[in-house]
Amino acid sequence: VETAAGSGRRVAIQGERGSFSHSAAQRALGPELEVVCEPSFDALFATVSEGRAERGLVPIENSLTGSLHENYDRLRASGLAIVGETHLRVRQCLIAAPGASLAGLRRVASHPVALAQCRSFFAAHPGIEPVVAYDTAGSVRELMRTRDVAAGAIAARLAAELYGAAVLREGLEDDPENYTRFLVLAREAVPTPGADKTTLLLRLPHVPGSLHRALGAFAERGVDLAKIESRPLRGRPGEYVFYLDVLGDPAGAVGAALAELRARCDELRVLGSYRSGPRSQAGRAGS
Amino acid sequence: VETAAGSGRRVAIQGERGSFSHSAAQRALGPELEVVCEPSFDALFATVSEGRAERGLVPIENSLTGSLHENYDRLRASGLAIVGETHLRVRQCLIAAPGASLAGLRRVASHPVALAQCRSFFAAHPGIEPVVAYDTAGSVRELMRTRDVAAGAIAARLAAELYGAAVLREGLEDDPENYTRFLVLAREAVPTPGADKTTLLLRLPHVPGSLHRALGAFAERGVDLAKIESRPLRGRPGEYVFYLDVLGDPAGAVGAALAELRARCDELRVLGSYRSGPRSQAGRAGS
Repeated sequence: VETAAGSGRRVAIQGERGSFSHSAAQRALGPELEVVCEPSFDALFATVSEGRAERGLVPIENSLTGSLHENYDRLRASGLAIVGETHLRVRQCLIAAPGASLAGLRRVASHPVALAQCRSFFAAHPGIEPVVAYDTAGSVRELMRTRDVAAGAIAARLAAELYGAAVLREGLEDDPENYTRFLVLAREAVPTPGADKTTLLLRLPHVPGSLHRALGAFAERGVDLAKIESRPLRGRPGEYVFYLDVLGDPAGAVGAALAELRARCDELRVLGSYRSGPRSQAGRAGS
Repeated sequence: VETAAGSGRRVAIQGERGSFSHSAAQRALGPELEVVCEPSFDALFATVSEGRAERGLVPIENSLTGSLHENYDRLRASGLAIVGETHLRVRQCLIAAPGASLAGLRRVASHPVALAQCRSFFAAHPGIEPVVAYDTAGSVRELMRTRDVAAGAIAARLAAELYGAAVLREGLEDDPENYTRFLVLAREAVPTPGADKTTLLLRLPHVPGSLHRALGAFAERGVDLAKIESRPLRGRPGEYVFYLDVLGDPAGAVGAALAELRARCDELRVLGSYRSGPRSQAGRAGS
């Protein structure tokens, strides 16, 4: 979505080169970016906040496992702005050193979450032992170091491309409905022509009906919700924040709804207005 | 919550004896249960559906990582009923063979999620190498097999108790606000005296304002929401279901709201009414 403008920019990801986060960064910002690999999400947020990278890419929800609440918390605490999103299909590849073949593999290494997503592959190949590793791309780097033709890895296609390994099979995952939504973060909000999605954080008065009244500001204007989620406030038992994605022109009905909503909330923060990624444009939840 | 009645019952969990799921089962149903270990959540749901266990314990959300959407999907597909819940604090323990000491440890094994939750421990002990393993309790079983006093594991206290290992340190996790909510499932709903929480699934007409109108049925009666979450419907882009937890007497205001709500929904399913677990009783999200 930011493809043209993304060339050569420094983009922070959590994880290694060749990871699914790296694939998502290329999808969102074009292939010419300079990736900054961080060992943790905290380090990623700090790198963008302190200007050592112009953008950060963070996973925020997966179609199978749900939202990553910790990254919502970090968004709230950091003050970074959402400036884009992208949906990446998680497509697990069987990767090996050049010259290796499926018949010769004895061990296949990957992160346990990736291994767990490929149960039917291992059930169909009882001669191949699954081996746990720290991450997907790191397993590919390791097999290219040893060049052991009995060793495979499960990772994104990008990892094979970066390390010069071969893709023996693609789509190893049991469930093809496996998508991860990534947010593109920046230190400050940027005006985005064609922005059609706004992510909000609401904290409401602690009385029955407060959410119903708040949603009325959108319903009265025909504004659609694409997502709603309650999240207990850390360290304040019984208090919640709500994360909402609303659809429409931020300068139009959405803006008018927000102006009205401000009076009904203890806290209202616009985390960003941006163009919705290809896959989510079809997604509407009603309001 | 079901403690007295839980004695001797067969309870299915995903994972091994000594896992956090096993700890949660004991917390919800008492220590005298017979645990049935299943390799996957699909197997767990099948075991309860087919009557090979009377109860199943499944994690449904974690305070740091959010809801486990796959288990909501399985609940919807299986027809099992929620008959209770419990909140387990995830307290990571450093475990070793009897006679081992922290100073002598060279390697500590666990599931990568557990290792990632204990970053500050490894930062403070650079002489100890973190080693990835399939699961937490399995790492304890393995170190008791070898009795290697240089090897440790990170797991629940229960794993140390079951395998006769020693707890060298408790509370290794970086973030003490780490709770997992587990649901107690049964083949059929059971009338629960004192039930004060009801979990619902709603599918709404795909028009703006439909969620606002649906929540009106609760707001008008002063019924509080404890949780709301939208979830895209698999294989039907643009359609959503909502999962709600509402508080109050299922035979009182909640029941009246549901009777009215039925007419406003494409689908309304009560997944269960049950007594809220100790930690959630304080939690209200407004409605």
